Amino acid sequence: MPGQKQGGLADVIAGQTGISTVGKEGKGLSYRGYSIYDLAQFASFEETAYLLLYGWLPTAEQLIQFQRQLAVSRALPPALTSILELLPGSTHPMDVLRTGYSALACFEPEEEDRLALDIAIRLIGSTSSILLYWYHYQQTGKRIDTYGGGGGVAAHFLSLLHQKEPDEQHAKALDVSLTLYAEHEFNASTFAARVTASTLSDYYSAVTTGVCTLRGPLHGGANEAAMELIERYASPDEAEAGVMEALQQKQLIMGFGHRVYSVSDPRSDVIKQWSLALSEQAGDRRLYDISERIEHVMRREKKLFPNLDFYSASAYHHMGIPTSLFTPVFVLSRLSGWSAHILEQRSRNRIIRPSADYIGPDPQEWLPLAQR
Amino acid sequence: MPGQKQGGLADVIAGQTGISTVGKEGKGLSYRGYSIYDLAQFASFEETAYLLLYGWLPTAEQLIQFQRQLAVSRALPPALTSILELLPGSTHPMDVLRTGYSALACFEPEEEDRLALDIAIRLIGSTSSILLYWYHYQQTGKRIDTYGGGGGVAAHFLSLLHQKEPDEQHAKALDVSLTLYAEHEFNASTFAARVTASTLSDYYSAVTTGVCTLRGPLHGGANEAAMELIERYASPDEAEAGVMEALQQKQLIMGFGHRVYSVSDPRSDVIKQWSLALSEQAGDRRLYDISERIEHVMRREKKLFPNLDFYSASAYHHMGIPTSLFTPVFVLSRLSGWSAHILEQRSRNRIIRPSADYIGPDPQEWLPLAQR
Ligand SMILES: CC(C)(COP(=O)(O)OP(=O)(O)OC[C@H]1O[C@@H](n2cnc3c(N)ncnc32)[C@H](O)[C@@H]1OP(=O)(O)O)[C@@H](O)C(=O)NCCC(=O)NCCS
Ligand SMILES: CC(C)(COP(=O)(O)OP(=O)(O)OC[C@H]1O[C@@H](n2cnc3c(N)ncnc32)[C@H](O)[C@@H]1OP(=O)(O)O)[C@@H](O)C(=O)NCCC(=O)NCCS
Repeated sequence: MPGQKQGGLADVIAGQTGISTVGKEGKGLSYRGYSIYDLAQFASFEETAYLLLYGWLPTAEQLIQFQRQLAVSRALPPALTSILELLPGSTHPMDVLRTGYSALACFEPEEEDRLALDIAIRLIGSTSSILLYWYHYQQTGKRIDTYGGGGGVAAHFLSLLHQKEPDEQHAKALDVSLTLYAEHEFNASTFAARVTASTLSDYYSAVTTGVCTLRGPLHGGANEAAMELIERYASPDEAEAGVMEALQQKQLIMGFGHRVYSVSDPRSDVIKQWSLALSEQAGDRRLYDISERIEHVMRREKKLFPNLDFYSASAYHHMGIPTSLFTPVFVLSRLSGWSAHILEQRSRNRIIRPSADYIGPDPQEWLPLAQR
Repeated sequence: MPGQKQGGLADVIAGQTGISTVGKEGKGLSYRGYSIYDLAQFASFEETAYLLLYGWLPTAEQLIQFQRQLAVSRALPPALTSILELLPGSTHPMDVLRTGYSALACFEPEEEDRLALDIAIRLIGSTSSILLYWYHYQQTGKRIDTYGGGGGVAAHFLSLLHQKEPDEQHAKALDVSLTLYAEHEFNASTFAARVTASTLSDYYSAVTTGVCTLRGPLHGGANEAAMELIERYASPDEAEAGVMEALQQKQLIMGFGHRVYSVSDPRSDVIKQWSLALSEQAGDRRLYDISERIEHVMRREKKLFPNLDFYSASAYHHMGIPTSLFTPVFVLSRLSGWSAHILEQRSRNRIIRPSADYIGPDPQEWLPLAQR
């Protein structure tokens, strides 16, 4: 690994995948050959998740069956709700999901009559339940009914969160966002999940690794960090001054840059339009205008472009999602991509075990305790 | 990546480390420059863990202070014991540890006045408590006092397990085994923990990833799988016939082979001697003799040598450790290596995000639901 920057496996091919392409010509994205633009415009998140999990777009009948399985999965075992009640209100919501998945594995382990694919659907269906059961219990003491209203995964999330039928525009925007977040090749959390799967560990463990890895601010945590950035400023001018200062101090601006994309992130174009639409619906363009100015400054100063996390922040904010739940929403979506990769890794497995370049001390003579 | 075998990052340098060397001349192992033979013979596990975490061998005073911190860490928060009581007795003990660590993060998160290094010590001190509190509660309904007797990490584990002062020889053998298992460069679980750390996720998440990844039978789970193998046979001759048949069916023999070592695993020599000593102490050489025969057959047939997991199985068995707790004992030890690597990753971080070779479908035209 030549050059100054080491350890990131940048441009190292770690394996093969048939699930998605990232960054063809520096900017494209497709899932199983379908362009992200088509999926965002025409497919529901459920169709997208099905495509990722099974490898093809569902027929009408397959889709209905899949939606039914997802809806059934919304109920939680009582011992799991007891555990969720024991997790303090101050807990990071990603820690709640990590603990919730890990505990669910104890009640419903992967075994011959409960296969990884079924558990994937179970987790996609129950993630909003786990998260929002804990959330409402810790906020108000209320034990919500996790079944919620009708609708798909996005509407279920919003109806559990707000405890009422979701605004249609919000549900549509969240549905699109889930499609955009669903899959992204060998990103850090997916790659880590594949390393876990490569030891032939169980499906829950591999997904839990995904949660552990997505949590960091350089990865999934960036949408929360982007929100903290944009809400810090009262106006675009203030934002410009603030970002210029941050750049001078060599700080990272969260929601910008990407390891693989070099020209732009195609998902950003889509979510940006939704962020604008939701701002106008709310009659409040402040966060959108601030975001646009920051985008402008980052292009001018660093030639960096917004990634999916940047405009997701203002879009989620307008849906009334608390900032601390942004990264868990990313999990809700990415479960589908992780699951596809875990299954793919298993189908042609070899343990993922790289080598290291040793830069430590030379051989040392043993030094008894008394002589130290 | 030429050739048939792909995806395993074999021989790919994924980064630098100053913590250990594996496989110099095909067989060596050192921690921070100290040979594993010296450490196994002269150092306690606590000295070894200190060496890994801090980078130097502790003075007498530093060691006493470290042992005191470990002992204080044996107590569990009441909400955590409540959670452990909710996990069924049928749970895989690795799932208990994974859930226990994940939950502890909710009660004692990493933050400014609770640093990763302190949490590492907390986890090393409390792992036996988490595991064996759950174990006894689910076996007998007894809520054990997790403080246990005096002694180090190995003696604490055995005294909680057996609910009496441990046999001295057993405690010594387990202590050596913990030293042998403590650290192993970029093995799959450590590498996965580094990927998690590379997104700047929290310490607990990185360690949880380690547990998730170690659980698989190609990695930490191999000691349990080796036990299942050797206890299947009544005699060395039966074992030879069984292994010959398994090899003919192209089955893997667990506890053999290694990605990096090509000649031998130096840790196996050490644990093999202890396995023999404990067999003779018990007046029962059956498992040892069966193991030796399998070793002989594997060398003869496949030129493969036992790795650490193989003779660990019979050694643990003679200490009265149930097979399902073998991999959790590996965790108890490897926590020290994982922690050293998480801290090292953070000290010179770049996100670990490789590329993939796309082998999926070509660009597809969108196909509306009605036309599928
Ligand atoms: C995504 C990210 C982790 C990619 O990491 P990477 O491929 O290792 O990128 P590099 O560190 O090589 O970036 C190249 C240069 O751009 C700079 N840069 C990259 N992202 C930046 C950002 N968001 N703000 C400011 N500068 C940035 C780097 O500091 C580096 O500058 P240098 O060459 O002077 O050191 C990185 O861009 C980042 O940290 N972004 C912010 C977090 C984020 O939005 N994550 C979500 C990704 S979807
Ligand atoms: C450790 C291990 C995962 C390393 O994987 P790897 O570096 O990818 O090894 P490879 O699969 O390239 O092994 C090379 C050859 O030896 C064979 N082999 C390796 N370990 C074997 C084993 N334990 N039993 C039988 N054959 C084995 C492989 O099948 C392969 O044969 P092939 O070339 O005909 O396909 C592998 O040796 C293994 O699965 N061992 C058993 C599990 C174990 O003990 N794990 C603990 C490791 S500390």
